[in-house]
Amino acid sequence: MKRKFFDVLAGAVLGAALSLGWSLPTLAQGDPLPSWNDTPTKQAIVEFVGRITKAGPDFVAPAERIATFDNDGTLWVEQPMYVQMDFALDRVKALAPLHPEWKYTEPFQSVLEGDMKTLIESGERGLVEMIMVTHAGMTTDEFSKIVTDWLAAARHPRFKRPYTELVYQPMLELLSYLRANGFKTFIVSGGGVEFMRPWTEKVYGIPPEQVIGSSIKTKFQMRDGSPTLFRLPDINFIDDKTGKPVGINEGIGRRPIAAFGNSDGDLEMLQWTTISGGVRLGAIVHHTDAEREYAYDKKSHFGRLDVALDAAAVNRWTVIDMKKDWKVIFPFEKH
Amino acid sequence: MKRKFFDVLAGAVLGAALSLGWSLPTLAQGDPLPSWNDTPTKQAIVEFVGRITKAGPDFVAPAERIATFDNDGTLWVEQPMYVQMDFALDRVKALAPLHPEWKYTEPFQSVLEGDMKTLIESGERGLVEMIMVTHAGMTTDEFSKIVTDWLAAARHPRFKRPYTELVYQPMLELLSYLRANGFKTFIVSGGGVEFMRPWTEKVYGIPPEQVIGSSIKTKFQMRDGSPTLFRLPDINFIDDKTGKPVGINEGIGRRPIAAFGNSDGDLEMLQWTTISGGVRLGAIVHHTDAEREYAYDKKSHFGRLDVALDAAAVNRWTVIDMKKDWKVIFPFEKH
Repeated sequence: MKRKFFDVLAGAVLGAALSLGWSLPTLAQGDPLPSWNDTPTKQAIVEFVGRITKAGPDFVAPAERIATFDNDGTLWVEQPMYVQMDFALDRVKALAPLHPEWKYTEPFQSVLEGDMKTLIESGERGLVEMIMVTHAGMTTDEFSKIVTDWLAAARHPRFKRPYTELVYQPMLELLSYLRANGFKTFIVSGGGVEFMRPWTEKVYGIPPEQVIGSSIKTKFQMRDGSPTLFRLPDINFIDDKTGKPVGINEGIGRRPIAAFGNSDGDLEMLQWTTISGGVRLGAIVHHTDAEREYAYDKKSHFGRLDVALDAAAVNRWTVIDMKKDWKVIFPFEKH
Repeated sequence: MKRKFFDVLAGAVLGAALSLGWSLPTLAQGDPLPSWNDTPTKQAIVEFVGRITKAGPDFVAPAERIATFDNDGTLWVEQPMYVQMDFALDRVKALAPLHPEWKYTEPFQSVLEGDMKTLIESGERGLVEMIMVTHAGMTTDEFSKIVTDWLAAARHPRFKRPYTELVYQPMLELLSYLRANGFKTFIVSGGGVEFMRPWTEKVYGIPPEQVIGSSIKTKFQMRDGSPTLFRLPDINFIDDKTGKPVGINEGIGRRPIAAFGNSDGDLEMLQWTTISGGVRLGAIVHHTDAEREYAYDKKSHFGRLDVALDAAAVNRWTVIDMKKDWKVIFPFEKH
């Protein structure tokens, strides 16, 4: 009798909860993804985590729970241009007094005159030259300080906030949710690894050793008895497209079981992660919200999403629709 | 009165303990380094850990507690030749039936005839050619299996045991001790990263993502609908000498606070780690025990310790004297 009484009581509580519109996992442990609407996207994520953490055929040992995240456009804003490009432009302006010849030399002349069209037309060669001038020629410690100082001062042209505040609140929750379920979260970005490491731990909870990115070469030198690494104007690795699985293999040495991207640059990372036999999660952030953030895909200059969007349908990757799936975009909207 | 009684009792126990030759930390928490003799070397390690974990001016936050370890000669045996070299020689023999021309082509002819002298005289070019032929031309998954299978079958010529049993018991204890004190332990080896990753977690408790080493280039390819990384006969990175700080910066992105090596190849890693202002630990395993292991330093072909040994005195690095400091060398000696 007593047992039956508790069963009835439990059923009543459950019924009341369901009638209030709570889902069962929410009731059981609090919603770990409160900024996500209750859509099939959220369900796909929660279901995946449930399957690989529960004893059974799909179980994945904690050590193998590797999740990789692109950065630009997946964790933080990449419009109207990549943050690192804004950094490079600002650095050209800051360094210009030391280089009077830049007034008459491309691509610097365009940068100083604010002529983005000509700058972009200078193509890869011009952009690489600009990156090298602004990213090399100092020690790693010096560069880290330059990045930190710049990020503290720079403001996004539309949102008028530091870039480190323009990270996606639902993705922050996703990072925490995965870590709470035994995942090790990594950034795998086409951006410069030393441009990210000074702040990823504070902003995303991702320590430097879990950040993989593009890099230039460095050279070890003893300077006045102190060991330094000097940054050279020479590309070391481009962590984009086919480079992402290569970077993952070099930096992690295991295949991820979940990967999150937002552009064609993430296609091969998603393939490498999901086409491997087990239960895997591949997801693409689709920028569909011009009002709260930006709306772009196949024709965007930054973060173009074309082939990877078509591949998502074929491979059953989860497409995260910012407008439909996210209650808020940025952390400051919560207040 | 009661309080005093306990003080007296505690003093008596303490006195008894000290008279038995136990040191205080040992009594308090069990000896985490039981295979180390109670020498100044052990004291230097324990004192360092005590200082950086205790609140005070030398405290280091857990996130910054990075310790790096060389592998060959620091964690496992590297005589009479590097294990990976034995692997390469065996692979040449295994692949020889597919390459009849090797009977008349150096460096393969020397390998097949067991003529190590001529092989070594073929110099870097010959050795690189041998490494490329044996380490490239397959996928990363295939190579991992080749390494695992070889390690299961190969035996050390003197100790007649699998190489993975020829790891240093005191260093295993040191790895555990550091991890128990909040350290993240990394391997930073001149050896091939994909030669180490298949077994470091099992043997050292160091997961693949905490292994940094030399590498060849890989190429992402879709093969019959499956994503693969194909190993190319092209050097990507040499993680030795000045390459070690470069590899640490690329793979970890923080400066270690403790580093352990055994040869001149570790000099720059030790400089990078210890010459940085705070309390740091640099240590060198000195192979001084011909009876239980090997005795070699300035003139050895493998693991030469010359400049770094002189630098140890100047920089106050701890020199671990295998013969004096270690009660046992290998785990199997405990039984």
